[in-house]
Amino acid sequence: MTAPPRMQVVRSRQALRRCVRAWRRAGLRVAFVPTMGSLHEGHLSLLRRARRLGDRVVLSIFVNPTQFSPREDFGAYPRNLPRDLRLARGVPVDLCFTPPVEAMYAQDSRTEVRVTCLDRVLEGSTRPAHFAGVALVVLKLLHLVEPDLLILGQKDAQQALILERMVRDLDVPVKVVRGPTVRERDGLAMSSRNAFLSPEDRAAAAALWRSLRHARDLVRSGERRSSRVLAAVRADLAQEPRIRLDYAAAVDARTLEPLTRLEGRVLFPLAAYLGRTRLIDNLEIHVPGGRR
Amino acid sequence: MTAPPRMQVVRSRQALRRCVRAWRRAGLRVAFVPTMGSLHEGHLSLLRRARRLGDRVVLSIFVNPTQFSPREDFGAYPRNLPRDLRLARGVPVDLCFTPPVEAMYAQDSRTEVRVTCLDRVLEGSTRPAHFAGVALVVLKLLHLVEPDLLILGQKDAQQALILERMVRDLDVPVKVVRGPTVRERDGLAMSSRNAFLSPEDRAAAAALWRSLRHARDLVRSGERRSSRVLAAVRADLAQEPRIRLDYAAAVDARTLEPLTRLEGRVLFPLAAYLGRTRLIDNLEIHVPGGRR
Repeated sequence: MTAPPRMQVVRSRQALRRCVRAWRRAGLRVAFVPTMGSLHEGHLSLLRRARRLGDRVVLSIFVNPTQFSPREDFGAYPRNLPRDLRLARGVPVDLCFTPPVEAMYAQDSRTEVRVTCLDRVLEGSTRPAHFAGVALVVLKLLHLVEPDLLILGQKDAQQALILERMVRDLDVPVKVVRGPTVRERDGLAMSSRNAFLSPEDRAAAAALWRSLRHARDLVRSGERRSSRVLAAVRADLAQEPRIRLDYAAAVDARTLEPLTRLEGRVLFPLAAYLGRTRLIDNLEIHVPGGRR
Repeated sequence: MTAPPRMQVVRSRQALRRCVRAWRRAGLRVAFVPTMGSLHEGHLSLLRRARRLGDRVVLSIFVNPTQFSPREDFGAYPRNLPRDLRLARGVPVDLCFTPPVEAMYAQDSRTEVRVTCLDRVLEGSTRPAHFAGVALVVLKLLHLVEPDLLILGQKDAQQALILERMVRDLDVPVKVVRGPTVRERDGLAMSSRNAFLSPEDRAAAAALWRSLRHARDLVRSGERRSSRVLAAVRADLAQEPRIRLDYAAAVDARTLEPLTRLEGRVLFPLAAYLGRTRLIDNLEIHVPGGRR
């Protein structure tokens, strides 16, 4: 047995830059996974993907205040740094960046980054400033880490799309890779917020993925009317009284525009409350069939 | 005599990246001057500054459509690439990047960058989308060039401040350096738009800098009331009937907030029309005197 490689844990931006720049000067390929910590198997799958694609893996753990609205759960968001570091060492990760909030945002910060249109639908319709906060922090992290690869999760498909678009529109020199959603045995998408669920809500939450599988089955059996598929999803979820649906939609996976006829890269995103906990999930499916 | 070094002229972003990345891998320090072309002595002074500070000098020439409003002079903005390239070779510049508009902006570009507050006063009050266009294109260019140094001109003091703030707020890994305004013999600030002036307007335009020098003299002789200094500036300019003043202000050079009492880093910016040509100029002065 060789000794496990040592993971650096850095809080300062200067130390981060020094370390990553030395790697880059040595010609090493850096893969980066930004997270808010409270790591679960979904994050770990992204980190393992980063491990395979990069010579060095950087993880950031930063619960970003600018993507929470005042009435959201910034204060209550689960945090467990010692556990996160242990899990990251197991991947293994080479560098974990854990900046304090005051090091990331100057009091008189004035710069805003928005990916318009895409940021005001679906999750953005109930969380109007959310994606501006996400875009800002990820752009800052990309400037600090300067990675070759940015690994994002399909679980947050709208977030991944918005960040891919930001990277393209701003010519950020990074390649974006999406990793698939990792699910519990009953299909519930892994999420740090699952920890908030009561046992009863946790059991009920499996209906979210069941409804999306139902959508997939309908499309596979030839259904092309989004109204029919969404009606089936809503009917499934209505049978679970603990679930309060926020939205279920069928949209073009590249534009997030609602689809009447299911064709091309189709995304079925949904959001629902179980008690006070809001969960999201989605299914992306390629539906063959040319344009008329 | 040694042969003059050869300047590369590249239109594609890929060729730009390839070249600059090779320099960076070789440990060379890259200094970058973004321009809209129509180069004059002001630009050349920035390029010579870049020459002194960097191992390699990159110039971009790109008349950026997103910083012009529909009723502004994008179409009429002076362009003379052969002359610009000749002047750049004389510095000498190592690489000149001249992208076509369609390579810089995708049809479905959605990302916006704003430096709020600072972008809605002074120049921003009459040109509300101008600085968002400037911030967007400069951030894109920084991502494409990845320079160590960004050289900006004091002539566009508000633009320089906004870009400095953007770089700081977004943690862009570049050092920003401001070069001083270069003036004609009669004091008129060098500007590509000076070419639009009729001989009579060109002669009258010297009054802009004369009025700012008057402001400087008043401050140096002890005047601390901005109302008095601005009244003198306006009275000077009122004597020149060809000049139609847009604004003259006294602001904090770091926040652009109006000053009643002149103290600290004071910026006197002004904008005026001569015929249909709009010119800007400014004076920055450090006024000693602690806070009470």
